Amino acid sequence: MTRKIGIIGMGNVGAACAHYIVSSGFVDDLVLIDKNEKKVKSDALDFEDAMANLPTHTNISVNDYSELDDADIIISAVGHISLIGGDHPNRFGELKPTGDDVTEVAKKIKQTKFHGILVVISNPNDVMTSMYQQVTGFPKERVIGTGTLLDSARMKRAVGKAFAVDPRSVSGYNLGEHGNSQFTAWSTVKVMDQPVAKLAKDSGLDLDQINEDVRMGGFTVFDGKGYTNYGISTAAVRLSLAILNDAHIELPVSNYREEYGVYLSYPAIVGRDGILKQLQLDLPQEELDKLQYSADYIKKNLK
Amino acid sequence: MTRKIGIIGMGNVGAACAHYIVSSGFVDDLVLIDKNEKKVKSDALDFEDAMANLPTHTNISVNDYSELDDADIIISAVGHISLIGGDHPNRFGELKPTGDDVTEVAKKIKQTKFHGILVVISNPNDVMTSMYQQVTGFPKERVIGTGTLLDSARMKRAVGKAFAVDPRSVSGYNLGEHGNSQFTAWSTVKVMDQPVAKLAKDSGLDLDQINEDVRMGGFTVFDGKGYTNYGISTAAVRLSLAILNDAHIELPVSNYREEYGVYLSYPAIVGRDGILKQLQLDLPQEELDKLQYSADYIKKNLK
Amino acid sequence: MTRKIGIIGMGNVGAACAHYIVSSGFVDDLVLIDKNEKKVKSDALDFEDAMANLPTHTNISVNDYSELDDADIIISAVGHISLIGGDHPNRFGELKPTGDDVTEVAKKIKQTKFHGILVVISNPNDVMTSMYQQVTGFPKERVIGTGTLLDSARMKRAVGKAFAVDPRSVSGYNLGEHGNSQFTAWSTVKVMDQPVAKLAKDSGLDLDQINEDVRMGGFTVFDGKGYTNYGISTAAVRLSLAILNDAHIELPVSNYREEYGVYLSYPAIVGRDGILKQLQLDLPQEELDKLQYSADYIKKNLK
Amino acid sequence: MTRKIGIIGMGNVGAACAHYIVSSGFVDDLVLIDKNEKKVKSDALDFEDAMANLPTHTNISVNDYSELDDADIIISAVGHISLIGGDHPNRFGELKPTGDDVTEVAKKIKQTKFHGILVVISNPNDVMTSMYQQVTGFPKERVIGTGTLLDSARMKRAVGKAFAVDPRSVSGYNLGEHGNSQFTAWSTVKVMDQPVAKLAKDSGLDLDQINEDVRMGGFTVFDGKGYTNYGISTAAVRLSLAILNDAHIELPVSNYREEYGVYLSYPAIVGRDGILKQLQLDLPQEELDKLQYSADYIKKNLK
Repeated sequence: MTRKIGIIGMGNVGAACAHYIVSSGFVDDLVLIDKNEKKVKSDALDFEDAMANLPTHTNISVNDYSELDDADIIISAVGHISLIGGDHPNRFGELKPTGDDVTEVAKKIKQTKFHGILVVISNPNDVMTSMYQQVTGFPKERVIGTGTLLDSARMKRAVGKAFAVDPRSVSGYNLGEHGNSQFTAWSTVKVMDQPVAKLAKDSGLDLDQINEDVRMGGFTVFDGKGYTNYGISTAAVRLSLAILNDAHIELPVSNYREEYGVYLSYPAIVGRDGILKQLQLDLPQEELDKLQYSADYIKKNLK
Repeated sequence: MTRKIGIIGMGNVGAACAHYIVSSGFVDDLVLIDKNEKKVKSDALDFEDAMANLPTHTNISVNDYSELDDADIIISAVGHISLIGGDHPNRFGELKPTGDDVTEVAKKIKQTKFHGILVVISNPNDVMTSMYQQVTGFPKERVIGTGTLLDSARMKRAVGKAFAVDPRSVSGYNLGEHGNSQFTAWSTVKVMDQPVAKLAKDSGLDLDQINEDVRMGGFTVFDGKGYTNYGISTAAVRLSLAILNDAHIELPVSNYREEYGVYLSYPAIVGRDGILKQLQLDLPQEELDKLQYSADYIKKNLK
Repeated sequence: MTRKIGIIGMGNVGAACAHYIVSSGFVDDLVLIDKNEKKVKSDALDFEDAMANLPTHTNISVNDYSELDDADIIISAVGHISLIGGDHPNRFGELKPTGDDVTEVAKKIKQTKFHGILVVISNPNDVMTSMYQQVTGFPKERVIGTGTLLDSARMKRAVGKAFAVDPRSVSGYNLGEHGNSQFTAWSTVKVMDQPVAKLAKDSGLDLDQINEDVRMGGFTVFDGKGYTNYGISTAAVRLSLAILNDAHIELPVSNYREEYGVYLSYPAIVGRDGILKQLQLDLPQEELDKLQYSADYIKKNLK
Repeated sequence: MTRKIGIIGMGNVGAACAHYIVSSGFVDDLVLIDKNEKKVKSDALDFEDAMANLPTHTNISVNDYSELDDADIIISAVGHISLIGGDHPNRFGELKPTGDDVTEVAKKIKQTKFHGILVVISNPNDVMTSMYQQVTGFPKERVIGTGTLLDSARMKRAVGKAFAVDPRSVSGYNLGEHGNSQFTAWSTVKVMDQPVAKLAKDSGLDLDQINEDVRMGGFTVFDGKGYTNYGISTAAVRLSLAILNDAHIELPVSNYREEYGVYLSYPAIVGRDGILKQLQLDLPQEELDKLQYSADYIKKNLK
């Protein structure tokens, strides 16, 4: 009855999720939670100052875990992005502190009656998604990481730009870890109904360069403002709407793959019960190797 | 022919405007301009990374004033918010540096073929709106400040909360300077079809307290996160949509009032040609005095 | 958990409600019910043919009352509009057949586990709303008629046109029966912060003529196409969103007023539990008399 | 400067386009034109009666061709759907009367200063699109038929239902005439990253049956209510938004293909200048034959 989402972590990403949700009227009830009470109350008040000028109404509650009892979705935007920079940027830079926060948050969620879907943005994404699942004990299909939904959007942006088409007219996936070991599965990428590899060869386009752009995309944005938030929050909200709508839509997100024994990004059908079905791609050996490498990398760091 | 908005100044406010506009697909072309090229390019790329996951497409260009030639609206979000804090917060703290920036930006706008409407968020709002008008030489009705559209929203939020009704069900205005001398014109405020003054007396509600809440609203938000962005950007975008739609809607915004010889907030009818008509309220003497005081305060600072 | 609306009656009005809801993605689950199974299945398939080109997903089920068990809202658009025309158009022309249908539908709703809010569009609106409440036995505050929410919109359209302002910048209400005895409570109508009566006198505007326009508004539209659907469906969906959002918004809708002993339109605060609070207007005697006349008219026809 | 669309023909399809556009606030100015002045005025008034309850404002003008001078897009929804039914439904049943109307309308458009994009819904679609182009003399890339954008949506609906996925997660096209000779190019259809032909074989699904469903989809809807409007109007508005946004999105629409010497549906990249680029699919001989047959059928009827 009515739509309710909780967002935990009101840094730049959590706040951008909330802004998109409030300004579009996507939910009826929104629960905002952050350890920095001053910040989250400030954001909540700021959203309420927007309400008189918005067409829709959203009820906002702050820092009350009991409000999550009947939420449809919890989005975890907990993070320590300031730790990922440096000369060799890597989302694993924030592994320890974010891991501690995620453990704490997951325990608190477990104590509520929450029985919806957990959407994890926190990084390193696949590891944090896994931690949430393990600590909460929720069924694996009900804990999902945004994973390479963002990387795939970046690939579509880059390929779209190269061929002067809208990113939505590029199909295909980035797979594996949402991190340095992620890769574009070029065998799956098509534009103008042609395999992009073929088109690239014809037009002298360097796919490795595009892949590198995609891999470094987040760091380019990060470099300019110290964080990234619009791309990732849009991906998280799209995933959340697919869950609310029970859309049965196909998205490349981080989900637990039995054959790899780990959470990693691989397309799945998403609906109200979370991961409804896992796809089985026909990948060439080279891409299978990359995926295995990515899986191994995640597994190693999970320990 | 299609909708085009330019935003100058990509701090927290300009970026929140852009985020709302891009995620809602309100325009076809968006021009983002900031002296910090790294930041504005970072935001633009971040928005483009969102595109594959959005239902609409927005063409974004960066730091190109010539793109403003055929824009419908320019939103000025230039500012130096870090300077307004301290023990006695006051938007005039950023008067000098923002004034310099506004003068520079206004000169650059003047050199373009822009002939749309200029929407000013920059603070101190009434002074900056006036400066934009003077430097560009645009007709006064085509330069508008967001003014107390935000303060009115804050008043509606506070009154709505006190009486458990949606802010949109509170009518009335905050008038004067968008700053410390602004005031709620309680004689205009109604809720549940009753003058709020009467209801407040019946229920022991302290209107002065609410007015103080409203006046300090921005500083409360500011105190929690170092800036305010959602309330103000929502107000600016609502005003912009009224202009694009040629809505002829009534909004309390900063417009030039001949009788006061200054820009200040007073309700007006807004449409594609900017300020279409100025309202004439029947204010009691006490409120007229406050308005005069506010006008004098703005005039003094404009010099 | 997610938003669910049922619409009973897929004539022009019910279909327009469904179209607005589906194309805006307002709900996750939509239940369509009509005695004409061929028609309702045709509309459902037509909506599904739209889905691939829409940004949102809506699950549609057809003619299954058990799907209403967990609906948030049921909209009754049951009607026999073809019977209201003629030389002296009157919504009471469809009293008997619509009353029979409403009784039948109300009994079927009663047999479900539905515990949401019932929004009644069916005409004559106040009588049908009353019948729904009586047959279902639902609490009076959980059965609401769209009432003069539409007439008020028509008044705002007419007044707005007369003064060249957006209808949203006109405040005030039409009260009483959603039918020939409804009237504009001019004492409540303001535009540009002035009582409209004063403005009208100044500008030679004939309020009686506007009132007649409003009263005949539906018949003018009806005359042109044999039905009215866009204005009324927009009103019904706006009311439904206020309920879903728990918006606590003020709307002039048909609600049971103890002092008149009947359902009639009078502004109320609307939220997730239906009618949350009833307003008390300070009407002049002339308008009180009109309201009493309207109440008596409804009461007479209810018997 | 601002978005403006004209819709010519306010039958069920044109009205549904207008309803979607007005209720979503997609444009600032909407021009409605129909020979039945009573009907189009009735719809316009009905939309205006909705405005007070909508978040956005749309300026509507009626039956004024000069208003098309600066429109971005004209949607032709002129038609005589009542003539397509019978035992052997065929959109060519309305060829003669719609052709006459289209010729008349095209001449009137030619007399305006309109220089935007012409979107044709009228049936038989490819023939009418061609007639519009010939009579107006507009460049071929600026006259586009909705073509099999609707048939492709129906195919995605049917395939999606068969595999329990959202239609948006089905890729591929229906090609050729928007009529009885259209066909699903199964070689292009993928779901869950697999060619649908392979999946269908594995699961015993009959693609011919699905194709027949798609081909007859419109007639099934037509049979239930005497017209189809939601699927087609959604397709037309999506196409129009792609043009307004200059989205460079890929859509299977009716565009002039030199190699066939005729307008027929084949995917193209669509933007503000209409057809920006035509795709070149790698179709198997069987599908090339079907396309040739379809092209010949259109050509024959064009004469």
